[in-house]
Amino acid sequence: MRTIDITTSSPYQVIVGHGLLEDCGSYIKNSFINSRAETAAIITDDAVGPLYAGRVSASLEAQGFNTIVYMIPNGEASKRIQTYLGVLEFLAENHVTRTDFIIALGGGVVGDLAGFAAATYLRKIDFIQIPTTLLAQVDSSVGGKTGVDLDAGKNLVGAFYQPKLVICDLDALDTLPDAVFKAGCAEVIKYGVLGDERLFSHLSQNALNFDREYVVGRCIEMKRDIVVEDEFDTGLRQLLNLGHTLGHAAEKLSDFTLSHGEAVSIGMAAISKAGAANGICSVECAARIANVLKKFGLPTDCDYSIDELYEAMQSDKKRKGGDISLVIPKRIGNCEIKKMPLQTMRVFMGTGL
Amino acid sequence: MRTIDITTSSPYQVIVGHGLLEDCGSYIKNSFINSRAETAAIITDDAVGPLYAGRVSASLEAQGFNTIVYMIPNGEASKRIQTYLGVLEFLAENHVTRTDFIIALGGGVVGDLAGFAAATYLRKIDFIQIPTTLLAQVDSSVGGKTGVDLDAGKNLVGAFYQPKLVICDLDALDTLPDAVFKAGCAEVIKYGVLGDERLFSHLSQNALNFDREYVVGRCIEMKRDIVVEDEFDTGLRQLLNLGHTLGHAAEKLSDFTLSHGEAVSIGMAAISKAGAANGICSVECAARIANVLKKFGLPTDCDYSIDELYEAMQSDKKRKGGDISLVIPKRIGNCEIKKMPLQTMRVFMGTGL
Repeated sequence: MRTIDITTSSPYQVIVGHGLLEDCGSYIKNSFINSRAETAAIITDDAVGPLYAGRVSASLEAQGFNTIVYMIPNGEASKRIQTYLGVLEFLAENHVTRTDFIIALGGGVVGDLAGFAAATYLRKIDFIQIPTTLLAQVDSSVGGKTGVDLDAGKNLVGAFYQPKLVICDLDALDTLPDAVFKAGCAEVIKYGVLGDERLFSHLSQNALNFDREYVVGRCIEMKRDIVVEDEFDTGLRQLLNLGHTLGHAAEKLSDFTLSHGEAVSIGMAAISKAGAANGICSVECAARIANVLKKFGLPTDCDYSIDELYEAMQSDKKRKGGDISLVIPKRIGNCEIKKMPLQTMRVFMGTGL
Repeated sequence: MRTIDITTSSPYQVIVGHGLLEDCGSYIKNSFINSRAETAAIITDDAVGPLYAGRVSASLEAQGFNTIVYMIPNGEASKRIQTYLGVLEFLAENHVTRTDFIIALGGGVVGDLAGFAAATYLRKIDFIQIPTTLLAQVDSSVGGKTGVDLDAGKNLVGAFYQPKLVICDLDALDTLPDAVFKAGCAEVIKYGVLGDERLFSHLSQNALNFDREYVVGRCIEMKRDIVVEDEFDTGLRQLLNLGHTLGHAAEKLSDFTLSHGEAVSIGMAAISKAGAANGICSVECAARIANVLKKFGLPTDCDYSIDELYEAMQSDKKRKGGDISLVIPKRIGNCEIKKMPLQTMRVFMGTGL
């Protein structure tokens, strides 16, 4: 077990280890939550809840908390403003007060949604993240981005809001469907490409049998370092978008039959190939990236044309004015942010397909 | 014209004066809004918009901003999560970006709603308050509380979010319906009771003909002093609830046929009378308070029984566990916060009806 300190404006800790769910009540009791907290509102989904909500509740009740559980349907389609309204009504009906707290138990959708509810219910109440997918453990549970989608686009509403504690139980990864686990691997590989050759090599050598505590811990540290530098997403944090610009577009075009991780994998392969085609990284670098993605069983090819993808990117909120920022590998462990006009991006990205 | 500095964690200014709407574009241009701002999304209602939206738009366009206008129905019934969703969709459809900004042009409902949209759209964009009612000028536009109601209760969802500038044009008060102006007077009187005998005396002597720049400015300063001390509403800010506990209950029972100000007036009269009955303030003090409220044409009697009011208070979110905090006048210009069990409050409050 290891503990990572996140020194954002409101500091908190991430605990990474095996078998943590059993004792989550005592970790939470000793965290920064309001000392008058009585009720824990556990927000989970119908895939994770049946497996773990009982264990989490029991551990909290052993510490003297009341628990209530709200279950949303599993999947990206739940990350909608309507689901958020359902959570708010649940909290109000159960008279959850501003000294109580919310637990997000599940993947990224649950974390983003429950975090946004915590940021806004009674103008903010405490919340704890218990991410149960690899993706959520290494990515969405650190950084304080919460939010939901509107019909007009992804993540259009939300808040920057830090949890009081994040508990990453590595054993929870054992029950993940294969596809969900692999999808998380795409983000793990992303961290290697972004800033850590050693991590990349470890993943390359071990593929799906990587050392979870080392890998999850290292990714969280790297994300922490970026987030602490740029809490409100005004520059450096754009690095985390590696593979995401094209990825989001592909995800949208597939009507979310591509998972987020698969989409990011396709996006990373494409941007690396484009980087190589334009002399920003070597052909070998792009090949190594594609290679490790394949070792993990992740897709590297895109079924959509650059025209289709370009159309889908138009509504990406990261676009400001006529320019778009792309994150492009220079070598393994080092990427650059390159701002270019949309039309230039279209041509550039086309060389990666 | 005078300028008041609000030194919350994100500082801003309130400008108070006559004829400010004509020049609002240049005040905004010189404020803390994002230097890359292009579009101003003006959120207003169908009572205020037809009077002032054109003037505000023209002044902004003269400074080179694009403007778009979204109008909600006037009235408390618009302060709902559904109206908030409508604002978000409007912003998304018009491709408002995170460097653009929102203007809340109207009373407290518009300010709370537009402020919450600004706090959460794209995880926050800048906003400017142009309050056009007396109530909004002295109360809701300072302090950063934004939010909307749920079916389960008032203000159950929202955020603490500070504007980048507040423009209080005193001339806008000329077009207020008589009842709306008087309702704002209840909050003005509240500030006198809370902390300024001189202000109270000025109101007592001048009634509806009070000096607007002095009174509005003084109330804003007093609210500023409280808010800066207690930005996140953990203690001192409770003072501002003077008259509100019973007021909210009466407002709810009346199905909002009582305005917020009328309800607060009733609440202040009742708590003063209860204070006198229990030896916390003098009978003369309670009489002076009732007297000034009447001079302003505000109600001081309550049509509801303590049992009805008690029932309605049960769902008040300010209640924590079995205790409730009441703000009770000790003398004009000095109030105390008294925490008591709900059952004690029921008896105490009953002596004020």
